[in-house]
Amino acid sequence: MKQIENWQSFGGEQQIWEHTSDTLNCDMNVAVFVPSKAKTEPCPLLYWLSGLTCTEKNFIEKSGYQRFAEEYGIIVVAPDTSPRGDDVADDDAYDLGKGAGFYVNATLSPWQSHYQMYDYVTLELPKLIADNFNINQKASISGHSMGGHGALMIGLRNPEAFASISAFSAIVAPMQVPWGKKAFSAYLDNNVSEWQKYDSTELLKGLDVPKVPPILIEQGLADQFLAEQLKPEIFESVAKDKGIDLTLNLRESYDHSYYFVATFIGEHFKFHAKFLSDS
Amino acid sequence: MKQIENWQSFGGEQQIWEHTSDTLNCDMNVAVFVPSKAKTEPCPLLYWLSGLTCTEKNFIEKSGYQRFAEEYGIIVVAPDTSPRGDDVADDDAYDLGKGAGFYVNATLSPWQSHYQMYDYVTLELPKLIADNFNINQKASISGHSMGGHGALMIGLRNPEAFASISAFSAIVAPMQVPWGKKAFSAYLDNNVSEWQKYDSTELLKGLDVPKVPPILIEQGLADQFLAEQLKPEIFESVAKDKGIDLTLNLRESYDHSYYFVATFIGEHFKFHAKFLSDS
Repeated sequence: MKQIENWQSFGGEQQIWEHTSDTLNCDMNVAVFVPSKAKTEPCPLLYWLSGLTCTEKNFIEKSGYQRFAEEYGIIVVAPDTSPRGDDVADDDAYDLGKGAGFYVNATLSPWQSHYQMYDYVTLELPKLIADNFNINQKASISGHSMGGHGALMIGLRNPEAFASISAFSAIVAPMQVPWGKKAFSAYLDNNVSEWQKYDSTELLKGLDVPKVPPILIEQGLADQFLAEQLKPEIFESVAKDKGIDLTLNLRESYDHSYYFVATFIGEHFKFHAKFLSDS
Repeated sequence: MKQIENWQSFGGEQQIWEHTSDTLNCDMNVAVFVPSKAKTEPCPLLYWLSGLTCTEKNFIEKSGYQRFAEEYGIIVVAPDTSPRGDDVADDDAYDLGKGAGFYVNATLSPWQSHYQMYDYVTLELPKLIADNFNINQKASISGHSMGGHGALMIGLRNPEAFASISAFSAIVAPMQVPWGKKAFSAYLDNNVSEWQKYDSTELLKGLDVPKVPPILIEQGLADQFLAEQLKPEIFESVAKDKGIDLTLNLRESYDHSYYFVATFIGEHFKFHAKFLSDS
């Protein structure tokens, strides 16, 4: 693991690391914010998963989250959104291939040799972070759009691993919307049980309520993808039926952009900090 | 003047406008943040001038300033850094031509037909803003790097127009450093008095102390351009000799990037808000 960038930011360090991923079979960049508190004591962790077309840089350049990561003493890990490199399969469309890994383990050709993002984020990355940073045992997860899907899905599949889950503008029911159907059709066997493993709404249905971490979802009402791709009401309906601790904030006039994320990222850090604190 | 983007941000609106500039003889984009307060009452203005290679987008995407513009009720105007378009002269170097207007009125060929950034920022833009936004009579100015030079220089040439001046990582003495010498040689007649009109340190020497607005300069000590291009001590020395109200904050470990700007932009808004308030 090699540090390739290090920017002083709000008293902490915004780092970018390069490493060879065995899981993805390629070299990857991962952004890590290290608050000053981590110099003297172990800190909790927040994973941030980004959306379609993003790399590890969008969130760290555009959300201004570092102010809050430093304030609450949280190490933040923001991986890239897909495997990278010249020998990695790709597609001309923005919503398939590079920049569009959808956080699944692909089973179909030509994707399966590199597109193992689920295992990368849930197995390889946590080990890498544990080996190289001063973390304690607590972690939460968040993300935006496709990364909101990733955060909810990974959080719900590993509820014991996360103190809290949040998402912005998330794809909450990928099996029911065009983005999800297209990606799952390309990456995964055409098999309902295979698809359900990566669908947050389906996962929520199958979970025992006491196991589910607190969930916060932020959604702009002027989001151009709201009605066709995001549909938070599907997830909300299941959560309500089961009595899940879900807060869904619907924000008038806000769209799908990082201006929206930047506006409310502080509230999400406050939410996670409550569950990540030692007490 | 045509609105081409409008993003809800921290309760206000981050807009981008396109207009045909008579001064620059081309179409220009300008970013304007309108706080919610401007719906009901006239608000003060802050001009932000960006640095080399930037457009109107860098500051609005990377600094997170909207949080403070909304908090203090300040309209923020961030123009592009040079004329634009296929018929505008350019240079292969990043520090000359497009993205490198240096906020001067060029007198030499091939630049003089479009590169009139001083007049654009000080004459055309204020009129455009006054005609289209709910502003009051108060304005301040700030900027980064080449835009820090622009903010100091324009502020000191028009001290009655600005309540306060601030800059990040500024070129404070362009006549004495490579960036400034190169740009002034290309754009301006080889004439000391012509160059002095655009050199903040020279301008400061010639000003009556009571006329100078309060000045705040932020400088990272790990800035790769500090020793060769920025040299804030030159400006500080003149300010000290004259008894000028200058605060120069030297920040250990911080570099030249927008991570630095984002970290301290809130303090600069607080500084300007003090002088922009009605009382």
